[in-house]
Amino acid sequence: MEKGNPEAGVTPGFQAVGDQGKGESGRAIPAFERVAILGLGQMGGSFALAARQRELGRFFSGFSRSPETRAEAVRRGLVDEAPDRVEVCVEGASLVYLAAPVRSIESLLRQIRGHLSAGVLLTDTGSTKVEIVRDVETLGLSASFVGGHPMCGTERAGLEAADAHLFEGATYVLTPTASTPPARLAQARQMVTALGSRVLELSPELHDRAVAAISHLPHVLAHALLLLAGQRQAAGEPVFELAAGSFRSGTRVAGSNPQMWSDIFASNRTEVLRALDEILALLYRLRAEIAADDLAALQATLEEARALQEKVRR
Amino acid sequence: MEKGNPEAGVTPGFQAVGDQGKGESGRAIPAFERVAILGLGQMGGSFALAARQRELGRFFSGFSRSPETRAEAVRRGLVDEAPDRVEVCVEGASLVYLAAPVRSIESLLRQIRGHLSAGVLLTDTGSTKVEIVRDVETLGLSASFVGGHPMCGTERAGLEAADAHLFEGATYVLTPTASTPPARLAQARQMVTALGSRVLELSPELHDRAVAAISHLPHVLAHALLLLAGQRQAAGEPVFELAAGSFRSGTRVAGSNPQMWSDIFASNRTEVLRALDEILALLYRLRAEIAADDLAALQATLEEARALQEKVRR
Repeated sequence: MEKGNPEAGVTPGFQAVGDQGKGESGRAIPAFERVAILGLGQMGGSFALAARQRELGRFFSGFSRSPETRAEAVRRGLVDEAPDRVEVCVEGASLVYLAAPVRSIESLLRQIRGHLSAGVLLTDTGSTKVEIVRDVETLGLSASFVGGHPMCGTERAGLEAADAHLFEGATYVLTPTASTPPARLAQARQMVTALGSRVLELSPELHDRAVAAISHLPHVLAHALLLLAGQRQAAGEPVFELAAGSFRSGTRVAGSNPQMWSDIFASNRTEVLRALDEILALLYRLRAEIAADDLAALQATLEEARALQEKVRR
Repeated sequence: MEKGNPEAGVTPGFQAVGDQGKGESGRAIPAFERVAILGLGQMGGSFALAARQRELGRFFSGFSRSPETRAEAVRRGLVDEAPDRVEVCVEGASLVYLAAPVRSIESLLRQIRGHLSAGVLLTDTGSTKVEIVRDVETLGLSASFVGGHPMCGTERAGLEAADAHLFEGATYVLTPTASTPPARLAQARQMVTALGSRVLELSPELHDRAVAAISHLPHVLAHALLLLAGQRQAAGEPVFELAAGSFRSGTRVAGSNPQMWSDIFASNRTEVLRALDEILALLYRLRAEIAADDLAALQATLEEARALQEKVRR
């Protein structure tokens, strides 16, 4: 082991910290002795900032495949160290926070599984959960793992998009299964609450189905809108010049990383296709109402949508 | 005539005003002696605020079908008077700014046509242009009219959403035709420039085709996304709780007025259907790439969309 645990001999896991570590309820927020963050993009970087600010851990080790990102994370004080081997990063950690893109998670799990401490809480931020939970079970890591998905990413990417307040007020999904130990789930819930997020527990299957509609589909639509604008502009229409609020908000998320999103669509293929088929059916319904010049039906449909928007806002 | 022009005897039209009326170029911005604003919603109210601030007119008369809105517009000083008859409002006006919903414009044109001054500039803010330009020609008003569409409305409605800065930096479409007198077009261009907007001249047909893709279609998609979320929530999925940035920005514009938007879709039916068919084809293309698990094709498509977004941003 190149770099040891700076507080060797301390049992990994929760430790009550001082007054600053008390939550709103007055109960002590448990601190992890040693936190390993795998992936130092927007999510991993934000977790480092938030966890430090909220004294969720004592020593932070970070890992990224990019030497520049590792150096930057140490330089900016997000982590105390950033070893170039992921096995070293997780050594002695009581919390391993996997904030890598969905398609990297399986290989990271393979690399670290022989190097995890007993009692470690292993959690991830992957945008889809069924595949990852299956990998965790296959690799025999279920006793440590609680799947997670903080619903607060933005279209910005990388360490420079890290934000200490990213998690505040967000819904943070946890996806325990029958093989998740209750103690691990309790730890994960406390961690999420300490970040200022609201816990929502879902099965991996229900999570993937719901996010296909509420998150993955808006990304598909944003990309399609941009492709349409490109076709029109190429055909001589001045659509780029005409793009105003509705187009900009409808396409905002298409600025997200293309590789990350093709991976997300692929890893949630069945549910993304289901959501796509449902929106296609709704678009045909709206098309029929417009084509029929049935203003009453059309207005009722738009009214229905607006009423739903009020419910989502609350 | 119940209320006369307070500066009777002054020829309606442009008058150079003092130093405060000089544009960035140093040229005097022409002022209209008497401005009539028909429709006191977000667009009419914003025009009143901006036109007063930029000394685009000397006396402002406003009309709304709602007595409360008329009283509020006078109380807040947006207009100097707000008569309860539209014919009175336009009497003696050198500029008539029609900021009513698309489906109200034809009846307003019928009501005012016998009451317009010679040399008046008549312009509108309707979201579609082919129908309105046809009505204008039928009613024999082409010598006064220049169609307009400021690309800066938001999902907020009513006088309370009026904003003196709404037009600044926006693209403002003008849709002259073969029967538009060059002097009227020149006046309209000066008015738009004085508001701080960029003029874009398009034929009514090209305008309607382009806005169907760039504005009307994003509204259709936003409504469809909300209807899908409503179906899922009704089926027991916690999608409302999971709604994060991508869903909120993708559905933001669905808060717009349902009657206004059913009217817009109906008055641009052919082009909205064409845009819908194009986005359906693109969604099937994305569906096929996801279904085939063709990550290279999918990633290339997302990359293409992101590159287009960069172009739109500029």
